[in-house]
Amino acid sequence: MPEMSAYADDPFLTACHGGKGRWTPVWFMRQAGRSLPEYRALRERHTMLDLCRTPELAAEVSLQPLRRLGVDAAILFSDIVVTLLGLGISLDIEPGLGPVIHEPLRSKEDIAGLGTLVPERDIPFVAESVRILVREAHVPVIGFAGAPFTLASYLIEGGPSRHHARTKNLMHTEPELWRELMERLASAVLASLRSQVEAGAAAVQLFDSWAGTLSPRDYERYALPASQAILEGLRDLGAPRIHFGVGTGELLALMADAGADVVGVDWRVPLDAARARVGGRALQGNLDPAALFAPADVVMREVDDVLKRGGGKGHIFNLGHGVLPDTDPEVLRRIVDHVHSRTEET
Amino acid sequence: MPEMSAYADDPFLTACHGGKGRWTPVWFMRQAGRSLPEYRALRERHTMLDLCRTPELAAEVSLQPLRRLGVDAAILFSDIVVTLLGLGISLDIEPGLGPVIHEPLRSKEDIAGLGTLVPERDIPFVAESVRILVREAHVPVIGFAGAPFTLASYLIEGGPSRHHARTKNLMHTEPELWRELMERLASAVLASLRSQVEAGAAAVQLFDSWAGTLSPRDYERYALPASQAILEGLRDLGAPRIHFGVGTGELLALMADAGADVVGVDWRVPLDAARARVGGRALQGNLDPAALFAPADVVMREVDDVLKRGGGKGHIFNLGHGVLPDTDPEVLRRIVDHVHSRTEET
Repeated sequence: MPEMSAYADDPFLTACHGGKGRWTPVWFMRQAGRSLPEYRALRERHTMLDLCRTPELAAEVSLQPLRRLGVDAAILFSDIVVTLLGLGISLDIEPGLGPVIHEPLRSKEDIAGLGTLVPERDIPFVAESVRILVREAHVPVIGFAGAPFTLASYLIEGGPSRHHARTKNLMHTEPELWRELMERLASAVLASLRSQVEAGAAAVQLFDSWAGTLSPRDYERYALPASQAILEGLRDLGAPRIHFGVGTGELLALMADAGADVVGVDWRVPLDAARARVGGRALQGNLDPAALFAPADVVMREVDDVLKRGGGKGHIFNLGHGVLPDTDPEVLRRIVDHVHSRTEET
Repeated sequence: MPEMSAYADDPFLTACHGGKGRWTPVWFMRQAGRSLPEYRALRERHTMLDLCRTPELAAEVSLQPLRRLGVDAAILFSDIVVTLLGLGISLDIEPGLGPVIHEPLRSKEDIAGLGTLVPERDIPFVAESVRILVREAHVPVIGFAGAPFTLASYLIEGGPSRHHARTKNLMHTEPELWRELMERLASAVLASLRSQVEAGAAAVQLFDSWAGTLSPRDYERYALPASQAILEGLRDLGAPRIHFGVGTGELLALMADAGADVVGVDWRVPLDAARARVGGRALQGNLDPAALFAPADVVMREVDDVLKRGGGKGHIFNLGHGVLPDTDPEVLRRIVDHVHSRTEET
């Protein structure tokens, strides 16, 4: 594990705190994953969940993009459903589909039956993966967990959902039961993220994939309180908290107020517009992942536009969502170089 | 066909023009469709495309929600791919999946091979459906077509797509070819909408399902010009033009400027916030379709919130997206009554 002093002028952590380091830091959501041939090679022998649950493999997968791309942060290779696994939920991740919950939560009894997550007992591999990763990585390590609303949607719908109708139904119809579910999930997520920081993660990302399907009113009423409990519950640890969801243009102010140090922004909201909504927080984002299939000059023009709108200070360059599986890793590497060279102090 | 004078104080048309009629008008996207048992009965004997292509059936399906729900406008029962059918594209609509294009457009030659749409020759059933509908309906009829960007995405991806990566790839990589495709599609859509208005449609809705997947820059550069050509090309006919897409919070100002009289808003943007973005245009929307599964008192509370934010003038009440198939039509009927009684002049 690097000394803390090794991070003192770290570009990623400096940007998380709203500052300007020697260059604009860059990492990519899903930088560890299908776009890398070395990841695909490992996946031929191991399932996604096996990779998440085997510390040496999770750390190895997390390290792959550092070696190949030169990014400024490592993120723990994991999946948002790992917290649910720790709560004893039976599930699989089906290739091309996503998480499938074998017995979706449908009743008061189902929800009352959810246990309490004790990370060292239920998901010891998470902190162990972080420990190995922190030892091996030469850049800050970001811990990772899914946010309660998104976890609740998977639990209730049984898998990915287009309209989240059952989830919204529970939320509107049984607000007390909904609150109980969200509080249980928040407690589990907080425990996991605290254990990751205690294992050496220098920052965390709370990922609310589906938050953007909620109106601001519903988000504020039904999703924000649980995310806020998590982000506030991490405050004493001092690790910067990144808060991200997709399609969250109208929610950015609320997501910032929930207790984020950094607000992640998808590609739909120009960063200069986002800046005005997040009240002084740092920003992370936001190149459209689908733009990476364009010719290099077009990609770099788009990168430059993101950098310009990001304003150079308190900006972590990233995509607006995860790297798409067909992305050429060479394009990712060139983006890292480009961002660094464009923004390096002269 | 009703006399034009019959529309003089029509609540729907009054609201389209920014005014306040005897009540706030209400209709529902996909009001004709799976939520109605009488529609499901017809679908047992006819495919979706057969319904679209048989004027008596398309009109009958369009009339069903008028009888049951008491809405203030009828919309032609159709599908956005009907324009593509008219262009000679071989396709099916697969239940539960959506449109499937048998031979997706992938090359310059594919695009050059797209013909010109002559509505009376290629899709005569569309105008004929409108004519029957206008004769039978006691409320204004809305014509309907999909917008070029969304049509292009179906053509290129071959069906519904999550990331639209091939589409964005073409857009970024071959901007001239992209422009040619968009111009051809715009010309076909304009021809279809003009023929619908000439057949008696009192308004039109241009539906750009996927526009919200674009950043504002990409929307402005690659999608807006074609939609603008259509909306401006309809101006001389005088029928109000409704412009709608999903996830378009950051695009509302551009979609208004494209030449809309009414901007449709999904449930993510509160109407009072939307109002500030559309420069004096009327608004349509925007209750979350998934909120209709809540108990009646919760639904009506949400309806009241939409009405309040809509401001009563230049507001057409609608959902923020189409009626979900499992929706209880009785809830829709009660919403219509509620909106009317809440807003009726006293």
